[in-house]
Amino acid sequence: MSGVPAARERPAPTVVAGVVERLARDYGARASTNASVREQHGHGEGLADAALPDVVVFPHTNEEVAAIVRLCNAARVPVIAFGIGTSLEGHVAALYGGVSLDLSQMNRVLEINADDLDCRVQAGVSREQLNAELKGTGLFFPIDPGANATIGGMTATRASGTNAVRYGTMRENVLGLTVVTADGRIVRTGGRARKSSAGYDLTRLFVGQEGTLAIITEIQLRLYGVPEAISAAVGQFPDLRSAVQTVIVAMQHGIPVARIELLDELQMRACIAYSKLAGYEARPTLLFEFHGTAAAVKEQAEMMAAIAADHGGGAFRFATAAEDRSQLWKARHNAWYAALALRPGAMGFSTDACVPISRLADCVLETREDVERSGLVCPIVGHVGDGNFHLLVLFDPNDGEERARAEALAQRVSLRAIRMGGTCTGEHGVGIHKLDALVAEHGDDAVDVMRTIKRALDPNDILNPGKTVPPERRGQA
Amino acid sequence: MSGVPAARERPAPTVVAGVVERLARDYGARASTNASVREQHGHGEGLADAALPDVVVFPHTNEEVAAIVRLCNAARVPVIAFGIGTSLEGHVAALYGGVSLDLSQMNRVLEINADDLDCRVQAGVSREQLNAELKGTGLFFPIDPGANATIGGMTATRASGTNAVRYGTMRENVLGLTVVTADGRIVRTGGRARKSSAGYDLTRLFVGQEGTLAIITEIQLRLYGVPEAISAAVGQFPDLRSAVQTVIVAMQHGIPVARIELLDELQMRACIAYSKLAGYEARPTLLFEFHGTAAAVKEQAEMMAAIAADHGGGAFRFATAAEDRSQLWKARHNAWYAALALRPGAMGFSTDACVPISRLADCVLETREDVERSGLVCPIVGHVGDGNFHLLVLFDPNDGEERARAEALAQRVSLRAIRMGGTCTGEHGVGIHKLDALVAEHGDDAVDVMRTIKRALDPNDILNPGKTVPPERRGQA
Repeated sequence: MSGVPAARERPAPTVVAGVVERLARDYGARASTNASVREQHGHGEGLADAALPDVVVFPHTNEEVAAIVRLCNAARVPVIAFGIGTSLEGHVAALYGGVSLDLSQMNRVLEINADDLDCRVQAGVSREQLNAELKGTGLFFPIDPGANATIGGMTATRASGTNAVRYGTMRENVLGLTVVTADGRIVRTGGRARKSSAGYDLTRLFVGQEGTLAIITEIQLRLYGVPEAISAAVGQFPDLRSAVQTVIVAMQHGIPVARIELLDELQMRACIAYSKLAGYEARPTLLFEFHGTAAAVKEQAEMMAAIAADHGGGAFRFATAAEDRSQLWKARHNAWYAALALRPGAMGFSTDACVPISRLADCVLETREDVERSGLVCPIVGHVGDGNFHLLVLFDPNDGEERARAEALAQRVSLRAIRMGGTCTGEHGVGIHKLDALVAEHGDDAVDVMRTIKRALDPNDILNPGKTVPPERRGQA
Repeated sequence: MSGVPAARERPAPTVVAGVVERLARDYGARASTNASVREQHGHGEGLADAALPDVVVFPHTNEEVAAIVRLCNAARVPVIAFGIGTSLEGHVAALYGGVSLDLSQMNRVLEINADDLDCRVQAGVSREQLNAELKGTGLFFPIDPGANATIGGMTATRASGTNAVRYGTMRENVLGLTVVTADGRIVRTGGRARKSSAGYDLTRLFVGQEGTLAIITEIQLRLYGVPEAISAAVGQFPDLRSAVQTVIVAMQHGIPVARIELLDELQMRACIAYSKLAGYEARPTLLFEFHGTAAAVKEQAEMMAAIAADHGGGAFRFATAAEDRSQLWKARHNAWYAALALRPGAMGFSTDACVPISRLADCVLETREDVERSGLVCPIVGHVGDGNFHLLVLFDPNDGEERARAEALAQRVSLRAIRMGGTCTGEHGVGIHKLDALVAEHGDDAVDVMRTIKRALDPNDILNPGKTVPPERRGQA
């Protein structure tokens, strides 16, 4: 994991004071320098990446965001978009102080176009809120990163989660955006047509830019009809290789599974204990979900069960009733807390490797061996239909040597995925922790193209400085 | 349609002569100043958009492309990527002379990763060539813009075609790229993982940039398993509204149709005559194709037939045998020639509106009325599952007034689509003909962001100058 990049400096205290004063005048109680508010906005849910902003401001409109950004740009004071604080890679840490722009009060669903299967929301709408507001329309928004993140944050990090294998990621599901540029202009990108060849794809450029090129304030999203039928199934396998091979074969056959989640033996043991899952064994396990017509769901589940049986998966256990499915997915969503409970007092963080599906078994099994050699406790969960898996790395926060070992292990996981033609981050983003891995993955020249774009769109380096793209050329990791 | 933008000037003849001389020395017969070769490279299949390059060069490797671009950049001489010349929007016209970079000899399929359903090809590979080379692997590349375009050209224009409704466009199907930047660096973008949050989405930025930000030399593509079953069906409708409403309802129900093509009464009449289609009437017609397991295809076709029957579509005529399907799709692919045959001696061009599906009936019917008022002969075909349709505008090339009327009609179609929340170009691109429409669609500020990116990545304006993004702010059309 990288240290803080050195290219930028904090603005002078008098300059910051001027900005704070102006914000207090314009926004009153919606501009806070309260220590606990600043502390809350200085970190996400990642590891020890806190850095406090000087002030937190809560805008209500695009125009307010634009005014705040213009103020910061004139003063060259950093401005860092903040949603709900579930980032795992240090995205919201105010490395050089400045303004935390909390978008959580911009939380209106602006329009639902049921006939076109799309909607427009403000950046602070959370995914659970959106799905609650869609109740009764027959539509839903599928992307589910686990945390109840904001749509703005999910867009900014190109998030995905358990059912990206069927519905894609934020990259595929954002139709258009409203953003505020570094010079404080309100810009609409994309549109509501399902395809377009009209000019540069600014929408995709702003999805995944982590608030470093523009502040995302509104998102036009694709929606989907709630499937006629949903069915879940659990397969348990004699070993990790068999479980992963089952996934590979299913993907190669093009079975349109909505979710395939892997839990290794250790993670399954943790989930059984934490979530009181009855009737399951602590063995490598796949959770499946199928969406479609009743006939299609039945056909998919049968094909999947046949492939699993070929790999020693035994009989599937089906969960068709909504409450059974809900228990299963709740256990999956709580995997992180279940893992932490394996080792009370430990801290943890997650790796995020994603590889071409043919390399998934190699990558998972080599990683499992690497974990064993490391002596660390690290369960594995994964959105394996995409080739994406997470190692939940636990360590004793009071043991510096163990922490270094944990970070070295994580670094090896990133480089292993890259070596296998994959990526260091399937869905969490770069933030401050993966700057070196980004260079290892894309090479100096591609990162230099990114840097050129950053400099062109944010010449004063005010937008979330120190994140996503290293400010200067570095040697490859 | 826009005139030629004025911001750039032709390089001095002595400068061009120096570049030509150097290319002749380095590439021998692969650098041609032959008049007919230059003429062939000065236009696509669009309307009257010819402008000759000074020289045409045929590189064989990324390194040669990089060397040529470096030479041009040093001399500030334009360089225009050329595939196979099927562009419809003037993309390859050498507005300021310079070098036409013909990539057709870079036509190798570099790797096929059947286990990962992906491949890497050089930019000059055509889509038919790729599918021929995939024979026997059980895989295919679905994107089909009609013309046997190169994969490089399809990537550069963000092309799609008849089955984008199921498989997406080039935006969704390009996993990564090798490009040469304006300063002559060879840069790899993206990767082989199905998803990634690692940095800015350079791949999507370079898909659809029409050779104005970088030269695309290699493309990593998604592939798909050849469906177990394919079935085609034809529905004929009492009027245009009924046909379009059938499509809208099918899309809102989420039926995963692989293709839905609309032919209006006039186009159907033209196709019956041109392609000797027996047993069909000259009425508004939908062609469907269904892909999947045998059971899934049957279920989709039944659902679709029920929706069509609700809209007066009568009984479907099915074509399950490959040769029957082939005749049908050949007739569709020849729609353009069939349309031209409606009016011997006429020239034609195609509009490319794409709207949110709920507005499709309004847009098509208003356009049909507009055509009637115009007195022109303009059949309609459409990839209507995406909300995309083409008006094939025929006019007498010797009648200036009629041509002006034809262009005014096309302009109204673009603006109508934009007004309905859609785009002026679903799949053909901007080129030189839609620069004003681009501003009308995205607004001055968004276009200014595009221009900022163009200037940052191509400061000497050597890459396909005068295309895609207007060089200076214009008033909205």
